[in-house]
Amino acid sequence: MGISSESCANGAWGSTGFREERDTFGPILVPANKLWGAQTQRSLQNFDIGGERERMPEPIIRAFGVLKKCAAKVNMEYGLDPSIGGAIMQAAQEVAEGKLNDHFPLVIWQTGSGTQSNMNANEVIANRAAEILGRKRGEKSVHPNDHVNRSQSSNDTFPTVMHIAAAMEINSRLLPSLGNLHSSLQSKSIEFKDIVKIGRTHTQDATPLTVGQEFSGYCTQVRYGIDRVNCTLPRIYQLAQGGTAVGTGLNTKKGFDVKLAAAVAKETSLPFVTAENKFEALAAHDACVETSGALNTVATSLMKIANDIRFLGSGPRCGLGELILPENEPGSSIMPGKVNPTQCEALTMVCARVMGNNVAITVGGSNGHFELNVFKPMIASGLLQSLRLLGDACSSFDKNCVQGIQADRERISKLLQESLMLVTSLNPKIGYDNAAKVAKKAHKEGSTLKESALKLKLLTSEEFDNLVVPEKMIGPSA
Amino acid sequence: MGISSESCANGAWGSTGFREERDTFGPILVPANKLWGAQTQRSLQNFDIGGERERMPEPIIRAFGVLKKCAAKVNMEYGLDPSIGGAIMQAAQEVAEGKLNDHFPLVIWQTGSGTQSNMNANEVIANRAAEILGRKRGEKSVHPNDHVNRSQSSNDTFPTVMHIAAAMEINSRLLPSLGNLHSSLQSKSIEFKDIVKIGRTHTQDATPLTVGQEFSGYCTQVRYGIDRVNCTLPRIYQLAQGGTAVGTGLNTKKGFDVKLAAAVAKETSLPFVTAENKFEALAAHDACVETSGALNTVATSLMKIANDIRFLGSGPRCGLGELILPENEPGSSIMPGKVNPTQCEALTMVCARVMGNNVAITVGGSNGHFELNVFKPMIASGLLQSLRLLGDACSSFDKNCVQGIQADRERISKLLQESLMLVTSLNPKIGYDNAAKVAKKAHKEGSTLKESALKLKLLTSEEFDNLVVPEKMIGPSA
Amino acid sequence: MGISSESCANGAWGSTGFREERDTFGPILVPANKLWGAQTQRSLQNFDIGGERERMPEPIIRAFGVLKKCAAKVNMEYGLDPSIGGAIMQAAQEVAEGKLNDHFPLVIWQTGSGTQSNMNANEVIANRAAEILGRKRGEKSVHPNDHVNRSQSSNDTFPTVMHIAAAMEINSRLLPSLGNLHSSLQSKSIEFKDIVKIGRTHTQDATPLTVGQEFSGYCTQVRYGIDRVNCTLPRIYQLAQGGTAVGTGLNTKKGFDVKLAAAVAKETSLPFVTAENKFEALAAHDACVETSGALNTVATSLMKIANDIRFLGSGPRCGLGELILPENEPGSSIMPGKVNPTQCEALTMVCARVMGNNVAITVGGSNGHFELNVFKPMIASGLLQSLRLLGDACSSFDKNCVQGIQADRERISKLLQESLMLVTSLNPKIGYDNAAKVAKKAHKEGSTLKESALKLKLLTSEEFDNLVVPEKMIGPSA
Amino acid sequence: MGISSESCANGAWGSTGFREERDTFGPILVPANKLWGAQTQRSLQNFDIGGERERMPEPIIRAFGVLKKCAAKVNMEYGLDPSIGGAIMQAAQEVAEGKLNDHFPLVIWQTGSGTQSNMNANEVIANRAAEILGRKRGEKSVHPNDHVNRSQSSNDTFPTVMHIAAAMEINSRLLPSLGNLHSSLQSKSIEFKDIVKIGRTHTQDATPLTVGQEFSGYCTQVRYGIDRVNCTLPRIYQLAQGGTAVGTGLNTKKGFDVKLAAAVAKETSLPFVTAENKFEALAAHDACVETSGALNTVATSLMKIANDIRFLGSGPRCGLGELILPENEPGSSIMPGKVNPTQCEALTMVCARVMGNNVAITVGGSNGHFELNVFKPMIASGLLQSLRLLGDACSSFDKNCVQGIQADRERISKLLQESLMLVTSLNPKIGYDNAAKVAKKAHKEGSTLKESALKLKLLTSEEFDNLVVPEKMIGPSA
Repeated sequence: MGISSESCANGAWGSTGFREERDTFGPILVPANKLWGAQTQRSLQNFDIGGERERMPEPIIRAFGVLKKCAAKVNMEYGLDPSIGGAIMQAAQEVAEGKLNDHFPLVIWQTGSGTQSNMNANEVIANRAAEILGRKRGEKSVHPNDHVNRSQSSNDTFPTVMHIAAAMEINSRLLPSLGNLHSSLQSKSIEFKDIVKIGRTHTQDATPLTVGQEFSGYCTQVRYGIDRVNCTLPRIYQLAQGGTAVGTGLNTKKGFDVKLAAAVAKETSLPFVTAENKFEALAAHDACVETSGALNTVATSLMKIANDIRFLGSGPRCGLGELILPENEPGSSIMPGKVNPTQCEALTMVCARVMGNNVAITVGGSNGHFELNVFKPMIASGLLQSLRLLGDACSSFDKNCVQGIQADRERISKLLQESLMLVTSLNPKIGYDNAAKVAKKAHKEGSTLKESALKLKLLTSEEFDNLVVPEKMIGPSA
Repeated sequence: MGISSESCANGAWGSTGFREERDTFGPILVPANKLWGAQTQRSLQNFDIGGERERMPEPIIRAFGVLKKCAAKVNMEYGLDPSIGGAIMQAAQEVAEGKLNDHFPLVIWQTGSGTQSNMNANEVIANRAAEILGRKRGEKSVHPNDHVNRSQSSNDTFPTVMHIAAAMEINSRLLPSLGNLHSSLQSKSIEFKDIVKIGRTHTQDATPLTVGQEFSGYCTQVRYGIDRVNCTLPRIYQLAQGGTAVGTGLNTKKGFDVKLAAAVAKETSLPFVTAENKFEALAAHDACVETSGALNTVATSLMKIANDIRFLGSGPRCGLGELILPENEPGSSIMPGKVNPTQCEALTMVCARVMGNNVAITVGGSNGHFELNVFKPMIASGLLQSLRLLGDACSSFDKNCVQGIQADRERISKLLQESLMLVTSLNPKIGYDNAAKVAKKAHKEGSTLKESALKLKLLTSEEFDNLVVPEKMIGPSA
Repeated sequence: MGISSESCANGAWGSTGFREERDTFGPILVPANKLWGAQTQRSLQNFDIGGERERMPEPIIRAFGVLKKCAAKVNMEYGLDPSIGGAIMQAAQEVAEGKLNDHFPLVIWQTGSGTQSNMNANEVIANRAAEILGRKRGEKSVHPNDHVNRSQSSNDTFPTVMHIAAAMEINSRLLPSLGNLHSSLQSKSIEFKDIVKIGRTHTQDATPLTVGQEFSGYCTQVRYGIDRVNCTLPRIYQLAQGGTAVGTGLNTKKGFDVKLAAAVAKETSLPFVTAENKFEALAAHDACVETSGALNTVATSLMKIANDIRFLGSGPRCGLGELILPENEPGSSIMPGKVNPTQCEALTMVCARVMGNNVAITVGGSNGHFELNVFKPMIASGLLQSLRLLGDACSSFDKNCVQGIQADRERISKLLQESLMLVTSLNPKIGYDNAAKVAKKAHKEGSTLKESALKLKLLTSEEFDNLVVPEKMIGPSA
Repeated sequence: MGISSESCANGAWGSTGFREERDTFGPILVPANKLWGAQTQRSLQNFDIGGERERMPEPIIRAFGVLKKCAAKVNMEYGLDPSIGGAIMQAAQEVAEGKLNDHFPLVIWQTGSGTQSNMNANEVIANRAAEILGRKRGEKSVHPNDHVNRSQSSNDTFPTVMHIAAAMEINSRLLPSLGNLHSSLQSKSIEFKDIVKIGRTHTQDATPLTVGQEFSGYCTQVRYGIDRVNCTLPRIYQLAQGGTAVGTGLNTKKGFDVKLAAAVAKETSLPFVTAENKFEALAAHDACVETSGALNTVATSLMKIANDIRFLGSGPRCGLGELILPENEPGSSIMPGKVNPTQCEALTMVCARVMGNNVAITVGGSNGHFELNVFKPMIASGLLQSLRLLGDACSSFDKNCVQGIQADRERISKLLQESLMLVTSLNPKIGYDNAAKVAKKAHKEGSTLKESALKLKLLTSEEFDNLVVPEKMIGPSA
């Protein structure tokens, strides 16, 4: 009764038999070696969607551990039995540390409030706390709803763990990765500051700049990306907890919300506060849409940077060849000796994914109704995937590509000398129209600019040499 | 009363004064020199959103002309007074020809059913038909609802004109443009069929192919694009007309739907039929989402093609330089003599727009409720914009860029000879691992493949020359 | 020669004949009564894409006026002939005021740098300035490049006008509209603060809250939306001007960039500054992607609010019917007396469009290469459309809907009394499981909660009456 | 050497020690109990992005098994040693059956060509085949490149497995699920065919229809969805295999491509053919973008259907309450007895995800360059996720929701009788304007339509009763 054949078959649990758990729908068998209860089991059976890869992301599970620990602590202040409260805190700590991950089998594609994952947390913690107290699983001596979920509703816990998980991933993974990438780009910008190269606009030859200047642009993009993510944090640090079912805080006590946020802040060392308006915090996930929008902008920046680097490193003989990228692995299963800009590729694929996630999150975020948005697990998983992938991909790109980039000075110099766009520095002297004649003639005849200029008798050789100096073309004149 | 100051100020109508029109909300003043009536006037005042650039697209207005003409014709079969019917047909024909465009001032951002534009059409045609019959505007001798809109509802007319307009734009604008672009790419593929060039994968040098082969890929993309758009037409040719308010066909007579679709088919020479299920046809616009999806795929193809062409044409001295693109205009306001791949740029900007429109249309298409989707004008305008821009941009790209592309045979040959990836043809002889050694040694030492191979004593000079022949590397071996 | 037949046919200019203009490509005829020059004319002919509706947005044209005026002013400090400079300033002022709009015929779908629109501005201003000085059009006594475009490149002017135009639309249109909408929602929140109603989560009956609380959530969403847009302004206020062709500032003088930004700041009364890094400012439009992301979040909020309002106002007899929305116009062409939530529909259509624009802008923003992003006009037009439509639609929604919303107290009260979810207030007394029994029994038997609770002998009548008081369920307990 | 600490730590392999494998980059240690080789190991270390949840989707691994088996079979026809070929076939069969899944540890976020996963397949199969032949792992007696990858390149194998995997998922998972959902909706449409209900347009009361008619719309949407997916299959059935590195087929023999496609067709019982143009098949993934577009349309349809069902099932006391949805689990952790439309929620979350995936795939699909698109693994994983989630969610929605939907006839009838929109059937008799007066008067006075009509003396009681018969309003008149 109640165990899907696939679940059994794929060994999600062993052969240790089953025990009975109950909820308001009645009894149901659950695997004896698992801590979850009746509602988790029902969800497993009712939502056979996507398989194991689609399980609720681990940062959500861990955030539930943090939250339930803090809730028990605050509930004790409001009268929760200390022995029960203490056991809940201990069990919740195990969840926060990822020790009970195997007891969280539910997928993202469940109820849109995340109720079933909240109940999964409540059930696991209740059963584990009961064991800590020397009681049996399933007996509800520690009750999932009345004790673990006390003063809470899925409708405020799930948004709360969404924000806790996102804030932790941003602070522990994304921002450090972006910071490191920024440092490496800045180092390269300094390292390459004296290498003058041909600029390219519209993919066509343009006036010169230094490789360092080019990298300073990337550097600025990443730095602003960090600013953009930081800008969204004040609203991510707001916790819905205390709103309970519809935002009013029914069944909580005055002050619970503020104390809970303070406890989470202490536990995580992040500046969480209680949400100003709990109705907004349950019914909308604008803060997640906003943060995803910032990640979308970061992805836009990284796509540009990675594209530039792979094109500037294209070759080795028939591309632009200005940069030499690290060789990390064989590039082709058929073309011997080929080396590819694979880190750029992984990063740009991640960027495309992040852009797609932003649309999914936007669609979900805009479709809440009345007192509750019911796209929560989808929004959470999309946002957390974007954070994880961007963080990891930036680290990988930094370590396995950017840090090892070298400039091919010889090639860069050769291209620069051939360019016709050095003609631009003649404008102030001979005017735009005459300068155009010089460039067009050189292009048509395959000659140098100087030859062309002299033939057109627009300048003397000395004048030309004084004006057309790439090294003087990389900034405003005094 | 009832005239917004802005509208007056910006001269949307002259100073000829006003007349009174009435609807179920009561009397309202409208400009005397305009044919519209009370409901159009109310919409003008209630939806001051976006200004003139955001007016309902002209193909929708013209399609209303076609539809109302056909409806009058069929209604006469069911008892509509022939003199009134005839006048309506004549007035509607003027709308279909674009002669009364100035009398359609409403913007896209109105009611989501397009009711106000349907009433705009009803009012203009009623007043014009009255004039044709020698009666006065505003007297409702020809009634906008009872005569012009007879057997119709906005809920079926607006989806009907969406499909008529889309089908006409597809057939008269998009498919011919794509067809011409396909022909030009095919001509180029043939013209360049003997030019062997270096291939590029991961933007890195790879094994050779011909320029003609490269263009054959573009050619296939465009051809499949035409197939993709054609695949969606059977559902676009289904007309909602006859469903009236909720899909049941209340207030129509049996057979009206079929006759109306036949009349539109005859009028437009396109194979329209009545929709199988009118409930679907009012409540959802999946057919538009589907067609937009096909355009999104076409945009994906064109983005790739235009990107390739601008990169292959990059230079003139410091890029890949394999293609020479037509020079149509000065490229820079500061760099004299610069010429840019501007047609590629216009086209790729259009592609980005089309991708965005697809998301807007998807969001609108998924948010219908119960018997009616109320994102109709937004969906229609997005789809028609995508069709128009893709059609026009393909024509421009074809005429001003593709047809004039030349291959720089000298440059192509030079790059090919330098490539290390010709080593791939040694695999069958000396194995992948040895071939890799040859390539890596040549790369490291800046030598040719042959020098490297001989030094490594893996082949004789004759063997090398027999195997490494780019012209033999552009297809399978016998 | 050189005039497309369509352009002539559609009367874009009159029959006053043509004059010859020249650029580096040679002579070309332009309409005598237009101020534009050769490069504008070439663009007209080379980019016949989309028709008049697709012209460069007016805020861009006006921003060019502002910029060129300021550039002339600063250039005079660096030696530009004062009489020429003065005439340029005067002509540019006319552009800034929209007086010369008819002389800006170019469409968005041109070169991706906006060079042609920059040259359009240069040409119009040069010719107009020449006239002011008593010279003839086309003679280049005031030169479009050497004088009007002095110290500038399209590559820095176009990003500059993008930022000027966006900042002006944000400050003059969007933020005031959002502010007004916020005020109206806040007023409603206060007006409705004592009306207790049934809450709805998962679209199902839930615990009660007040209508005022519900509106406070909307209010907070809009307020945070204003914060979100404001957060992006520091990067929008950065101007690229001074970077010229590739970001180096070639052909400008030291300090030009700072002075120019200061002049624009003074002219517009907005705190513009010169961009920290000009390479980033030309090669990427992350700031526009970021702002569009903020608008996407605002659209998400507004979609939620408008959806709620239309559902809460659904009826009049067979919907939820809690809110009474203003009746602005007849709702149906077939169903007499029908009134629809048309303002909600216009607004949600705008939101869908804004979401689509965000994707288009993201795609464009991520596809820049090397020293220049060439999706500029597409990005600019998408961003400006989002700003305009959101601003206008919020105003319309505020004025024509929100301000007139009334609560149907009788209906709200009736629904509240019938709800089963009041049972939640029994949890602290009888526990979750028993409370569930009460609710399920009442649901099954169609009885009231009280009848059910008494039958189950879980509470006395007095206890029930003390606990189940909707007015006490709208906040935490003391 | 060469083992990342994290990989070791997280127990991705046991403590059985390591063996040395080699590639053209030199030796590297791999876990002794794993079949993969040097290139897989390098990828593991170079692409530490996303963790285990981000592994290459299983359908891709299985498709590699199918492909490599078929390739060995065809290669034997062209001279591959039969004992080696046979062993490869046997090993590949094990991969196809999922038996060696644990030996495919690589993540999606690797090289954009999927080369590393192709090499993972080559290495695992080579080592397994060697064992079958009684040889040792790592000795390359069966060579990953020269034998297993013979006549192949990653650049044609990866697109081939993308198409094989997608086609198999479409045929074995998505289409059957959609088919079942269609059947259930059709059954409901028939079951409910006589229940007349109020229609709703703009979420407002409208003219009546039957519940069966309403469901027939959903039914049609799903059926067209099946058609839409089927329309894309002809291009998915085209296999890139035979194009090798750049599309030319270098290092294959004539006829290899056709034979290979035939072998895959036989192996899978699906009508695969060799791609008409191999250049297109490597450089673009338009076919995947197209199929994703069809899924996007299906998601649009399902979002609409699921939204309708949850709104029509809203209540139990304060919503529309026309449908009774199956109760599958407790709905709330705080509100006892609450039951929610959770299947609708899971499905609509999936739809949002699919819409996001479509954007990611579009971005990836449009960013290919020259002879190769390097967003392959991202495109593949997005498409396969969409297919899996849609298939599973449709099954779950069908089984756990649609099949159990009941109509609340009493509630439906009550609402219908109250509606004012029945007035529409008076139009043909008394005209639109008079009918509007009747409805408005009834609305204002809270009376019935009949009372209002009689008071206005527009009809007799008998006339009213004859005309206003909901059962006669659900279709055209004779």
